[in-house]
Amino acid sequence: MTRYLLARPRTLVPLTFFAARYESAKSSISEDLGIIRRTFKQRGTGILETIPGAAGGVRYIPTITKEDAAKFIDAMAKKMSTSDRLLPGGYVYLSDLLGDPMILEQIGRAISTQYVNERVDAVMTVATKGIPIAQSTAEFLNVPFVIVRRDSKITEGSTISVNYVSGSSSRIEKMELSKRSLKSGARVLIVDDFMKGGGTVNGMKSLIEEFDAETVGITVFAEAAFEGQHLVEDYTSLLKVDQINTLDKTLHVTTGNYFENNPELGKRDPQ
Amino acid sequence: MTRYLLARPRTLVPLTFFAARYESAKSSISEDLGIIRRTFKQRGTGILETIPGAAGGVRYIPTITKEDAAKFIDAMAKKMSTSDRLLPGGYVYLSDLLGDPMILEQIGRAISTQYVNERVDAVMTVATKGIPIAQSTAEFLNVPFVIVRRDSKITEGSTISVNYVSGSSSRIEKMELSKRSLKSGARVLIVDDFMKGGGTVNGMKSLIEEFDAETVGITVFAEAAFEGQHLVEDYTSLLKVDQINTLDKTLHVTTGNYFENNPELGKRDPQ
Repeated sequence: MTRYLLARPRTLVPLTFFAARYESAKSSISEDLGIIRRTFKQRGTGILETIPGAAGGVRYIPTITKEDAAKFIDAMAKKMSTSDRLLPGGYVYLSDLLGDPMILEQIGRAISTQYVNERVDAVMTVATKGIPIAQSTAEFLNVPFVIVRRDSKITEGSTISVNYVSGSSSRIEKMELSKRSLKSGARVLIVDDFMKGGGTVNGMKSLIEEFDAETVGITVFAEAAFEGQHLVEDYTSLLKVDQINTLDKTLHVTTGNYFENNPELGKRDPQ
Repeated sequence: MTRYLLARPRTLVPLTFFAARYESAKSSISEDLGIIRRTFKQRGTGILETIPGAAGGVRYIPTITKEDAAKFIDAMAKKMSTSDRLLPGGYVYLSDLLGDPMILEQIGRAISTQYVNERVDAVMTVATKGIPIAQSTAEFLNVPFVIVRRDSKITEGSTISVNYVSGSSSRIEKMELSKRSLKSGARVLIVDDFMKGGGTVNGMKSLIEEFDAETVGITVFAEAAFEGQHLVEDYTSLLKVDQINTLDKTLHVTTGNYFENNPELGKRDPQ
């Protein structure tokens, strides 16, 4: 049962299904689920939610504990604060971190935990570096992810596009998404790897509006210190690159606003 | 223990670790692992490999059974054979499939099962559409994945690039990978979403050579029927788009060479 539930996050599984699968009485299934629930809680794996009634069942919602999130974000901040990550133009090399399945798992877990109580229908990001974050988050939410493109590709069919102002460079750019990628009314979570002025994220918000869909939230892996007005206000960042000194080749990375925005983190437990 | 092992594919866990974690004797840990092993085998989840001796332990290797792989590939072929997927130029719309975490899980499982007996140090793909496949495969192999780029980005630091001939269009193009992405001597698995002439895959092979690394294998999600000589021969495809008729707007998709290349699929069981 553990394996079955872990493989299907946020999916309601009727107790009768397990009873038939393991040829057991519903009462002993309930007992075993109680053990799994306690273990999940104790190890910080997630919530095992029981919905009573004929249409009920059990649902596994992966979460991260406040302690695990803090430990992970601290470790990332330390890893990112090395001068050899500094690239020309004040960018930070992240490809190794965002290519590590274990790190991506933690990122996806941390982002999705914010939306334990909310319906999310899809995760959106922009190509290329946001994709691994979107995929990992989508795995934990068990919803599809869609990829917005800055370059127009012929292999996507008809698209809807928007113009947006890149906040850091003040250039007008264009992004587009295949028309059939998103249904109207969908509740969409925006994720990205790095945010400076917020122009790209703002572009995605406009794109979601063009699809008559709704933005549930915005979370970026890292935000850069930015002098000036952010184009979006209501975002969450796991990390903040708050000092970049290209002369000394030093940078300083701290925790973003993740914990401020999630004061109740890990406190919700319906049982 | 199930949860712990599932979360760490291909990682050797000493029995003493579990004994300490659960405050149990090694003998009862061994007994429980026996139950998990049988369940994993019965459900086709994977192999639980026991390495004896002081430096030994237990390792979970995720696999797919021949039956599950056949069922999955058949379902994909059916899904892909709809005329509304046909795009101008003989391309096929795959973004919805490659944005579905459940489908990606099966793809990753099917690809990684081929390398149960081999050391793989990294998975490589080219941006953009290959990324979800690389990430999913890397999760099952528990190794990093690296993303080759066709466009030169300033945010990656110094890169190594190669020129390659696009097999389908016979144009000379360029692809590059950040210099620090790959270590020399690494054993690299190439994956991609779609292959026509094999030019892109061949470019990645050259790039791996430039890094003094080694290509372990090549697997693509779908290959297109291609008139002419493929630029690579030693590849595996899960699916084959064997008839595209842009006039009638019909296409026909069948199983690729996956089962031919993996006759022993699911047969290996060391215990």
